[in-house]
Amino acid sequence: MTDLENIAKLGKSASIKAMLLDSEIKNKVLLKIAEELENSKDLIIKANEKDLEEAKQLLEKGEINKSAYNRLKLDENKLKDMVQGVRDITKLDDLVNKILWKRELSDGIELHKVACPIGLIGVIFEARPDVISQISALAIKSSNAVVLKGGKEAKNTNTAIFEVITRTLSSFKEFPANLISLVYTREDVAEMLKLDKYFDLIIPRGSNALVKFIKSNTKIPVLGHADGICHIYIDESADLNKVLKVCVDAKCQYPSACNSVETILVNKNVLDSILPKLCEELKNNGVTIKGDDNCRKIVPELEQAVEDDWRTEYGEKIVSIKCVESLDEAIEHINSFGSHHTDCILSENKENAEKFMSLVDSAGVYHNISTRFADGFRYGFGAEVGISTNKTHARGPVGIEGLMIYKYKLYGHGDIVSDFTTHKRSFTHRELK
Amino acid sequence: MTDLENIAKLGKSASIKAMLLDSEIKNKVLLKIAEELENSKDLIIKANEKDLEEAKQLLEKGEINKSAYNRLKLDENKLKDMVQGVRDITKLDDLVNKILWKRELSDGIELHKVACPIGLIGVIFEARPDVISQISALAIKSSNAVVLKGGKEAKNTNTAIFEVITRTLSSFKEFPANLISLVYTREDVAEMLKLDKYFDLIIPRGSNALVKFIKSNTKIPVLGHADGICHIYIDESADLNKVLKVCVDAKCQYPSACNSVETILVNKNVLDSILPKLCEELKNNGVTIKGDDNCRKIVPELEQAVEDDWRTEYGEKIVSIKCVESLDEAIEHINSFGSHHTDCILSENKENAEKFMSLVDSAGVYHNISTRFADGFRYGFGAEVGISTNKTHARGPVGIEGLMIYKYKLYGHGDIVSDFTTHKRSFTHRELK
Repeated sequence: MTDLENIAKLGKSASIKAMLLDSEIKNKVLLKIAEELENSKDLIIKANEKDLEEAKQLLEKGEINKSAYNRLKLDENKLKDMVQGVRDITKLDDLVNKILWKRELSDGIELHKVACPIGLIGVIFEARPDVISQISALAIKSSNAVVLKGGKEAKNTNTAIFEVITRTLSSFKEFPANLISLVYTREDVAEMLKLDKYFDLIIPRGSNALVKFIKSNTKIPVLGHADGICHIYIDESADLNKVLKVCVDAKCQYPSACNSVETILVNKNVLDSILPKLCEELKNNGVTIKGDDNCRKIVPELEQAVEDDWRTEYGEKIVSIKCVESLDEAIEHINSFGSHHTDCILSENKENAEKFMSLVDSAGVYHNISTRFADGFRYGFGAEVGISTNKTHARGPVGIEGLMIYKYKLYGHGDIVSDFTTHKRSFTHRELK
Repeated sequence: MTDLENIAKLGKSASIKAMLLDSEIKNKVLLKIAEELENSKDLIIKANEKDLEEAKQLLEKGEINKSAYNRLKLDENKLKDMVQGVRDITKLDDLVNKILWKRELSDGIELHKVACPIGLIGVIFEARPDVISQISALAIKSSNAVVLKGGKEAKNTNTAIFEVITRTLSSFKEFPANLISLVYTREDVAEMLKLDKYFDLIIPRGSNALVKFIKSNTKIPVLGHADGICHIYIDESADLNKVLKVCVDAKCQYPSACNSVETILVNKNVLDSILPKLCEELKNNGVTIKGDDNCRKIVPELEQAVEDDWRTEYGEKIVSIKCVESLDEAIEHINSFGSHHTDCILSENKENAEKFMSLVDSAGVYHNISTRFADGFRYGFGAEVGISTNKTHARGPVGIEGLMIYKYKLYGHGDIVSDFTTHKRSFTHRELK
């Protein structure tokens, strides 16, 4: 048995024991972790400084980029947010053992659908060290076990945070050991993906390349998103003021986020009236604009957009603009080229908005509002596991509910099926309160 | 583009159009299909006779077994049930566009979580021809598209049923074409598994070997179960009368079903008192019994059970019996050797029953009731897509809810994220009715 297999086996076993933990002890543990993280502030920041020093050399050599370097940085403010994040999770409802519904199947036979944790979850993330406390806290609250694999650039910071968490956990004797584990290497990831015997779910949080690699190399269900190719469609009846505000926010507020806009579709009937002003506003905000032939007829200085642009997540201040004949063409374009993440219609026509929102096959369908709102905190989920473009289990920003499944508990008194097939007894199927 | 890729592409596009269908038209179509199946009764039974003739030769050559032959058979009674099954689906709630909850994110910003169909589903099934009408009806009601792949032994019957369905669908001009497709070959399956671009979910209904092959050969989420290794644990306080009744029902009522019991665990403190009577009762019902060393000390004529027996789904009137030291050992055994399908405790001790039901990590955890109850119809789901041992999306018997996912609809008035990051505005996160 390899090291990782052993960690997975212990984690799975801890996940079973964790089902008996009550909310009170879980919240107590979380508050203690928050306190201990505060107490270890200096130690964690020192560990982070070591990581930053090494990362600086990688940055100078061009092996990582500036934004990866920034994400790695954990200053006192970020640490404060991180600790608050752990405290906030105590305020979330504990869904474990929640009875979703009860039904009488027949006289004396009761079926309960009961929420329960998924089991053992592998979380693979890149440089951001605050992920470790957030996911650990969510796992504790939802009675799941996790094996975390952090980016090697953050190894010192991750280890420092992880040690505070496990030290605190082990001080509560009611708490099962091995609920949270941390591994470090690429080899661990490769092995994790093979361990479908133990892992019930893999959550990758990182680059598109990472997510694609994981999806292609495991039988374990994967929750996440690869691309974030979000669209804004400007309908005939769109309000110019909203167009300018929303497009700038969706592109510029945080261009490297997965929910920022990559392609703007403009209805041909308003191309003349809207495009010049929109381009001017975007340019004033430092955006490079690529347009199709119809757009370039009106604003000739735009760069030429080609078909590949419709499939590109720029991740920076670049946007492509395409002219469409109709609402239907916009929907068709989004469903074909988009990544089913978050797409918006700007329109003062309610019927068109509803049609767009029904037929666009994305996790988030928006009317007159920036795509940047696609986020667990903004949705009020308290904490976010990640954003999913899956079509099963959980979609869009995923909160603690995404870490839950259910089981059926059936209570009888020695009842047998043959009494029902021989018509001695019959089903009542009566809903119970 | 291959034939199957074209079918998948058309199916995906039909699934989008189907989102606009209202309940009334969907129910009308289903009732018409039921009527037309009745009208085509003779034609369908004739097609089935042709399949049976060919299957008889395979049976004589030993290429299929008697139970596969029986499953293939579609007599007038089975056809009546099949038609009733389609009618019953009109009575199920239409979940499409159901608002699951509404939340105000901030003044004038409303988030709606709305149920919607999954999209394009591939269903791979073996000999039973009634699956085709059941799955088609569920797909229509839930606005999903399906590509069905039936067993080649049932080709004539499947084609006859499928033609009635598609002919009826095409007589409703509001209905999108290509919502239901039928393919025939193994090559089609191999290709389907690669088309993750179009298929959102694969549901295999058939042998363990089929399900395992599919799970190992696709990136598409798979809903189903491979093994059905169900247990009954006889606790110290078990009532003998219930033990005898439930064990016989769970093993004998339909031994080839996935929810029939394969291993019975007996607490050592009641081995002496219960085992001889249990073995006698099982033997009287034609069951072959394998026991571990402790059991054979008490009932020496039992066949020897070896470790491999704990991992075996017999699928016939064979059962293995193992003596366990404690409730904890029973739970540990079930979680290690079981298939997380359905497991039962026979006990008059409520606390033990609740512990078992909390810690056994299975889709169904039962107290004093036969494992054979694990079934969508018995649970009152109206129709069953299959039984899932997955830990994500849907678990246990899966009804129409398992064919649904959700999307987030967000309504605004030109709102932008930067107003919130700059603290001009703040989130309210107020639940709405």
